[in-house]
Amino acid sequence: MQQVKLGLIGGGTVGNAVYRGLLRNGDLMASRLGVRLEVVRIAVRDPRKTRETDLPAHLLTGDWKSVVHNPDVHVVVELIGGITTAKEVILAALQHGKPVVTANKALLSAHGEELFAAARANNANLYYEASVAGGIPIIKVLRESLVGNRITCLRGIVNGTCNYILTRMKLEGIDFSEALTEAQRLGYAEADPSLDIDGHDAAHKTGILASLAHGFWVQPGEVHTEGIRQITRLDIQFAARLGYTLRLLGVVKTVTPARLAPPGSRRRPVGPGIQVAVYPALVPDSHVLASVNHAFNAISVQGDIVGETLFYGRGAGGDPTASSVLSDLADAALDLKHGSHDRVPAFVPHHGGGHVVPMDAVPCRYYVRLAVLDRPGVFAKIAAVLAQARIGISSIIQPEGHDGDSVPVILMIHDAPDAKVRQALARIARLSAVKAPPVMIRVEGAEGATETRAP
Amino acid sequence: MQQVKLGLIGGGTVGNAVYRGLLRNGDLMASRLGVRLEVVRIAVRDPRKTRETDLPAHLLTGDWKSVVHNPDVHVVVELIGGITTAKEVILAALQHGKPVVTANKALLSAHGEELFAAARANNANLYYEASVAGGIPIIKVLRESLVGNRITCLRGIVNGTCNYILTRMKLEGIDFSEALTEAQRLGYAEADPSLDIDGHDAAHKTGILASLAHGFWVQPGEVHTEGIRQITRLDIQFAARLGYTLRLLGVVKTVTPARLAPPGSRRRPVGPGIQVAVYPALVPDSHVLASVNHAFNAISVQGDIVGETLFYGRGAGGDPTASSVLSDLADAALDLKHGSHDRVPAFVPHHGGGHVVPMDAVPCRYYVRLAVLDRPGVFAKIAAVLAQARIGISSIIQPEGHDGDSVPVILMIHDAPDAKVRQALARIARLSAVKAPPVMIRVEGAEGATETRAP
Repeated sequence: MQQVKLGLIGGGTVGNAVYRGLLRNGDLMASRLGVRLEVVRIAVRDPRKTRETDLPAHLLTGDWKSVVHNPDVHVVVELIGGITTAKEVILAALQHGKPVVTANKALLSAHGEELFAAARANNANLYYEASVAGGIPIIKVLRESLVGNRITCLRGIVNGTCNYILTRMKLEGIDFSEALTEAQRLGYAEADPSLDIDGHDAAHKTGILASLAHGFWVQPGEVHTEGIRQITRLDIQFAARLGYTLRLLGVVKTVTPARLAPPGSRRRPVGPGIQVAVYPALVPDSHVLASVNHAFNAISVQGDIVGETLFYGRGAGGDPTASSVLSDLADAALDLKHGSHDRVPAFVPHHGGGHVVPMDAVPCRYYVRLAVLDRPGVFAKIAAVLAQARIGISSIIQPEGHDGDSVPVILMIHDAPDAKVRQALARIARLSAVKAPPVMIRVEGAEGATETRAP
Repeated sequence: MQQVKLGLIGGGTVGNAVYRGLLRNGDLMASRLGVRLEVVRIAVRDPRKTRETDLPAHLLTGDWKSVVHNPDVHVVVELIGGITTAKEVILAALQHGKPVVTANKALLSAHGEELFAAARANNANLYYEASVAGGIPIIKVLRESLVGNRITCLRGIVNGTCNYILTRMKLEGIDFSEALTEAQRLGYAEADPSLDIDGHDAAHKTGILASLAHGFWVQPGEVHTEGIRQITRLDIQFAARLGYTLRLLGVVKTVTPARLAPPGSRRRPVGPGIQVAVYPALVPDSHVLASVNHAFNAISVQGDIVGETLFYGRGAGGDPTASSVLSDLADAALDLKHGSHDRVPAFVPHHGGGHVVPMDAVPCRYYVRLAVLDRPGVFAKIAAVLAQARIGISSIIQPEGHDGDSVPVILMIHDAPDAKVRQALARIARLSAVKAPPVMIRVEGAEGATETRAP
């Protein structure tokens, strides 16, 4: 049977899991694929360091270049993370015409366009299933399974840390800070949690998915990014009573942007307008995304032909990520076997292209919580400001409870340009009867509630 | 750009949807794939018949053979359903060395082994993503994305008609017969609904998934099949109060069978034991499968490396099915372009094989509802029968309410061989205090409740 020889760069959690996976299921994969995968070399930071590892000492080296340049190595697997050495590794391998498998979302987000161009130029493919959402095969699904579809809407829970924190806050009624401490204690959140809880990690993944779905490269700076630090358990509880669950979502949607600037003030952009953003959002409990709990990830994808789909699984951790690396290795091995290195290229700019619409111009639905004085005429004043801005209210709810002399009022607002809603809310905040800055949380997945109606 | 020419056999719902899909997104697919797909011929039953169709008259013919034999046709797409002509079509195309795309689950279930052998013998691939679960890419997921995994457990909602009926029964508290009538009125169920509601359609799909996951061909007769006719709204309501939702599931699990016969009475079977079955089951509300409503399908797959995953979407209908046909067409076109016709063969018997374990020997959990006289000592008698059979009770619930002089009692029983539980229940049914045949419904997805705990 044909053998494909692998050089692993990186001996951390994922590197160990990939090695273990091949040890465990290598025979099974060989009988399924008709090709045998064999790890022949592993580059680690310090091969002399004694550690808890499954990697055999005789395969280790401290010199990644010797692995990439080794003529016995057919496929290079980059699992070191970071964006400096990892980039050198990948470029060096591609320049040798070797296919590369990577799990590195930060690197792809920052330099994907350059890396994919290098793959094309060198006739060597770059595989990256493991870079987004761990064990969920979202890259293959978007590129191959949904290849006949225009992707009209994608909403993903792509950060397990945030989902874990939000799940604990909802199920146990605890505060953000307490849930974060718990997540840190259990190893779901880093000591410096900013990359996760401020939405940056989700933004990396969302940008990669948006680029793939729409066929033009979305720059990291184009992804509107909000995190979950400011979320209170009070809003999670009010939302629950209204039938909503809070999730941090990556959102990629084809939108008709509002015209905020006077006509003629800008060049006409290319192709359809796409919203690419990460923010906390309320999802109706009837939507499957609302039942994705703890550290699980899920990505809901709407195609113009397939309709609504959803893909669920563990978004992080050595083994789930290794499952995706093994899938890429299988593709790389089959492509080598059949000489079809660019069968499904890493990234193809395609038909029509598109452009990212600034968040200000994106139509949004909002949950708004106000703290207002409990006296006649307050609603009328609030409603007047919204009416003047032509913003529709779908419902007004006054839950039980007081906070000093003010009472909470919740407005559900829909389908108005983001900037307009924010301007109107700023005016409402200045009303004398409004006692605190309004809380604003977007609402996603409630349109037509397709999931709860008979299709 | 290279063109791949398609011959469609079948001008029904799916045929029309595939044609429309290519009309709509053909340019997009061409720019993604680097190959253009073009329908050059369509065989229909009667090309002169005027009908509501998107198919252009000049492509139509009444003679499928002329399409299959046409040297201009590179790929044959079988969309007529049924198992007689469809089989001839596929075999004829394969014998011409032409790749075939099919959506025909009944045919694959009945003759898959023969058809896959014909594909292998003729060096022409057979693609069948659309045969299971409509728009959900479960075939590609199992074969490619999870190729590094041993599939330890698969549970699928793969029949939209049943899921629609069970959803209506739960959400609206209506009876089975009323929900069925509604489903028929809305076109979700046939006038003769047996194929769906007796579990046969789900069994076809479950058999295909089991074969694919475990690498040995599961014969249709080996799939233990129960339907949903006997399900009452009473049990749906009791289960809801206990935190469970009823679903018709296809279940494929690696199991350690109970030894029911004396040792030495059978030949030792090959490979691991696999349960392959279709039955109504209670799923904990915390499991994502419980939130799959109406006509949607979903398949939960556990791999030994990836852990728990789930794939959700529309399981039937022209467009979702067409999305899967288009995905297969893309693979067929790329395989033709790269000369890699057997890159991922239709079906590969693989490492170790396995065998189907008879349902009697499969360990099961059960929800059991008894109608018993409300008098002292009844519980003790029931418990004694179960204790004698070494069947553990995880809980006993007596909900409010009477039915004449009897009261309902619910037992949650777990992890005993199916036949043993049934025998013990038969003994309990004969107790004088037990006033009606026990209702028995299996419980799935509650083991360790991985979905609700922090992983």
